[in-house]
Amino acid sequence: MSAILFPQQVIARKRDGYALTRDEIAAFVRGATDGSWADYQLSALLMAIFLRGMTAEETAALTDAMMRSGTVADLSSVRLPKVDKHSTGGVGDKISLHLAPMVAACGVAVPMVSGRGLGHTGGTLDKLESIPGFRVSLTLQEYRAELEKIGVSLIGQTKDLAPADKKLYSLRDVTATVECIPLICASIMSKKLAEGIDALVLDVKFGRGAFMADKARAKELAAAMVAIGRAMSKPVRAVLTAMDQPLGRAVGNALEVAESIACLKGVGPADTMEVTYALGEQMLILAGVVPDAAVARSRLEEAVRSGRALAKFREIVTAQDGDPRVVDDPSILPRARSIEPLVSRTGGWVRQVDARGVALAALRLGAGRARAEDAVDPAVGIDRLVKIGERVAPGGALCFVHANDPHAAAEARAMLVEAIQVGPEPPPPQPPLVDAILS
Amino acid sequence: MSAILFPQQVIARKRDGYALTRDEIAAFVRGATDGSWADYQLSALLMAIFLRGMTAEETAALTDAMMRSGTVADLSSVRLPKVDKHSTGGVGDKISLHLAPMVAACGVAVPMVSGRGLGHTGGTLDKLESIPGFRVSLTLQEYRAELEKIGVSLIGQTKDLAPADKKLYSLRDVTATVECIPLICASIMSKKLAEGIDALVLDVKFGRGAFMADKARAKELAAAMVAIGRAMSKPVRAVLTAMDQPLGRAVGNALEVAESIACLKGVGPADTMEVTYALGEQMLILAGVVPDAAVARSRLEEAVRSGRALAKFREIVTAQDGDPRVVDDPSILPRARSIEPLVSRTGGWVRQVDARGVALAALRLGAGRARAEDAVDPAVGIDRLVKIGERVAPGGALCFVHANDPHAAAEARAMLVEAIQVGPEPPPPQPPLVDAILS
Repeated sequence: MSAILFPQQVIARKRDGYALTRDEIAAFVRGATDGSWADYQLSALLMAIFLRGMTAEETAALTDAMMRSGTVADLSSVRLPKVDKHSTGGVGDKISLHLAPMVAACGVAVPMVSGRGLGHTGGTLDKLESIPGFRVSLTLQEYRAELEKIGVSLIGQTKDLAPADKKLYSLRDVTATVECIPLICASIMSKKLAEGIDALVLDVKFGRGAFMADKARAKELAAAMVAIGRAMSKPVRAVLTAMDQPLGRAVGNALEVAESIACLKGVGPADTMEVTYALGEQMLILAGVVPDAAVARSRLEEAVRSGRALAKFREIVTAQDGDPRVVDDPSILPRARSIEPLVSRTGGWVRQVDARGVALAALRLGAGRARAEDAVDPAVGIDRLVKIGERVAPGGALCFVHANDPHAAAEARAMLVEAIQVGPEPPPPQPPLVDAILS
Repeated sequence: MSAILFPQQVIARKRDGYALTRDEIAAFVRGATDGSWADYQLSALLMAIFLRGMTAEETAALTDAMMRSGTVADLSSVRLPKVDKHSTGGVGDKISLHLAPMVAACGVAVPMVSGRGLGHTGGTLDKLESIPGFRVSLTLQEYRAELEKIGVSLIGQTKDLAPADKKLYSLRDVTATVECIPLICASIMSKKLAEGIDALVLDVKFGRGAFMADKARAKELAAAMVAIGRAMSKPVRAVLTAMDQPLGRAVGNALEVAESIACLKGVGPADTMEVTYALGEQMLILAGVVPDAAVARSRLEEAVRSGRALAKFREIVTAQDGDPRVVDDPSILPRARSIEPLVSRTGGWVRQVDARGVALAALRLGAGRARAEDAVDPAVGIDRLVKIGERVAPGGALCFVHANDPHAAAEARAMLVEAIQVGPEPPPPQPPLVDAILS
C-alpha cells in the first residue's frame, strides 16, 4: 500500500543526496519499463545518480528491480550447477568462445547471454556470427533446451531479459551517464542474474584497452559487483586482469574465432590461456565441483588435452545452426580480400602494443561498430600480432592486416605503426596479467 | 567555424565540473529551440547544471543565448525610457497591476510581459483576465502599438519571446531542476531582456510565502541577476522584500484586482503601498527621470493623488479590450456565490498569518492552479484578511472566504484556521518589509 511516487519526487531526493528507498527505486525501474516515466525524467535521475552516487543497498535494490523488470529465466530443469562469466570488455578478448565449452566439458552448465561490440571493444555475438549459419537469437525456450541437452548456450540478450536495462542503457549512451559504477554494476548484474545462474565470475579489466583504464576504479567496480552478488545471495568472484596490449594475437571477428579454436586445441597464445584458466578455475570453484584452483586447473587442462572441450564447442555450433566443419577447418570462415604483413622498419624489441590503438585500427578496417546501428565485417582485422617483449628483425612482420578496402587498410596500417613501438632495448618486465581475485 | 558539438560532449563537460564555453551553451540553447537535442539530453544537462552550478560568465552566456532564441522586441519606436519590474512571486502580490500604470503616469514606458500563477503563487495574467473582456494574448505588434500610444502594456509571453525558456522551463518543472539559481536567473532575465527594455527592477522575495524561503538564498539570486544585467549592459536593481504574510488583504484574482484599484485610488493597504513605492522609486531612478528616491516617491504619490495613475489603468483596460467600467465599479468583477466571514474563537493579537497556508487555502478554493493545465476561478479567494499585530475581538472576522463550492470552502476554512494564529500577547515587532536594495 505504498503511496504513488511522482518522478519529480524521486528525482529530487537523489538530487539532494539522499539514498533512495526500495519503493523509489522500484518506481524508477517500473517507469523505465512501462513508459510511465518520460525519457527526460529517467535521464535526469540517471545524471543525479551519476553525480550523487548510490549506496551498496541502493545498487543492490536497483539490480534486483532491473532483473525483475522482465523474465528471470527458470533453469531449474538444468540439473548441473550453472555458472557464467562476464567480461567488462577488452581488445582481442575472445575468451568466452572457448572458456564456455571448456567449463561445460568439466560438468558445469554455462548459460551465457552476451552482447555486441561497441566502440573499441569487440562483442562475443559478432564473433560467433562470423561462423557461417551460427544463430545467436534464440528464444528462452531454445536456450533452456540447449542447456538441458549440452550444458551450454551462447546467445544474445532477448527482449524478455531485463528490459529496463535495455531502456536505461540506450539513454545513458546519449546522455553522458555511462561511466558510473552503480549504474554499470546494476546493468551487468541485472542481465546476468536474469539468465538463471547460480554463480558468476567477472573479468574486470583495467589498462589502456579497457573500458576503465584506471586500476583503482576497476577494483572499485569489481568490489561493487561482488557486494551486489552477496546482497542477492549469488556467489560472485571478480578477477582483475590487465588490458594494456590486446589479448592473444588476433583482433577481428573471424580471426578471433580461429584463435579461440586454437585455444581449444591446446595451441592458443600463452596470455590468452593464462586468463582463460584463471577465470575457468573460479567458475569450477563456485560451481562446487572442485576443492581448489589447482584441481580446477588440471580438470580444465584435461578437458582441452582430451579433446572434450573442442567437442563441446562443436556441439554448440551444431546446436545453434552453425557450420560444424569450422572446428576442423577454420579456413571456411570469412576471409578478407587482402592479407598483408605490416613490417618493422627497424629491428629490436617490441616495447608497446597499445590495445586501444590496435582496436581503433580494427574498427577502421570494419571489424567493430562506431555506432550501435553499424554492421561489422566478419573477415577483417589483425592477426599474428607481436607481443610486448618479443624480438623483431628489421623487415620482420609486426602483424598481418586483413582488409576489404584499400583506403581503410592504409589508414589502419598507419594507426598500427603508431600503436606498436619497437626499440633498441628490451622493455621492463610487464606486471602480471592476472592482478587480483576478489570474492 | 566551430566544430560540431555533440550533446553528450557538452553534458559530459558540465557533469565533470567544467565551465561551459559560449559555444557549448549556444549549442545547448539551439538544441532546445530547434529540437536537435532530445528532451532527455536537455534534462540530463539541466540536472548536471543543477548539481555542478554555473559561473557568472556561464549564466550571462546562457541568458544571452536564451534571449536570442527568439525575437528580441524592438521598441526603438517607443521614445520614453523603458523599464519593467519582475517579482519572483508571492502571495497576494498584485503590485504589477497598479505599479505599471503608476510608473507609466510618471513618463516612463513599462513594457511588461507576465506569467500565470502556478502552485501557491498567483499570476498577473490570471488576475488581469478576471476583468471582463481583458485580453492578455497580444501580438508583438499590438504590444508595441500600445506602448507607443499609452506607454504601458501588460501581456503574456508570446511564442516569439525566448522560446528556449519555454522549452527548458517545461522540462525543469517535471525533472526536479527548478530551484537552481543560474537556471532561474537565465529564465527570468532572458524573457525580460527580450521584451525590449532599457532597465529592470526585480522584487526578490524571501520568507514562508516566497519561492525561496531563505533570505540568504534570495539575496544570492538577486545578486546573480544584477550581475547578469551588468554583464549584458542593462541596469538591473533588485529589491529584497519579506513575504511571510500575504501582501495586502486580498488573495484571489478578482479580489486582488479590486485591491489594486483601491491602491490606485490611494486607499490600498499600507504594506502593499510600501513595496509598490520601493519598486516604483527604483524604476524611476533607472529610467533617469528623477535624481533620487525621495523625488521619485513624490512623483508616484502625485500620480495617485491626481488620478493620473488610475486614468492610465483605465487606458490599459480599454486598450486591451477589458471593460473600463471596472475602474469605477469593481462590483462588475466576477463574484463568488458564497461570501462568509471566518471568525476568531478567541480575542487577542494576530501573531501569524502564514502566507503559504493562505495561498494553499486560496488554491483549494480554485483561485490558483496546481498544474499548468488547470483553469482558475476568477471569483474565489480571501479578502479583508487581518494583518500580523492587529487586534481581534472574540467572534471578530479574521477574513472573508469567497467560495463557489461548499466542500472547497470548508476545507479552505480549516486551512485558514491553521494559517492564522491569534494569541493573548502582541507579536514581537516584525522585520521591515523592504530588506535591501542591490544594484
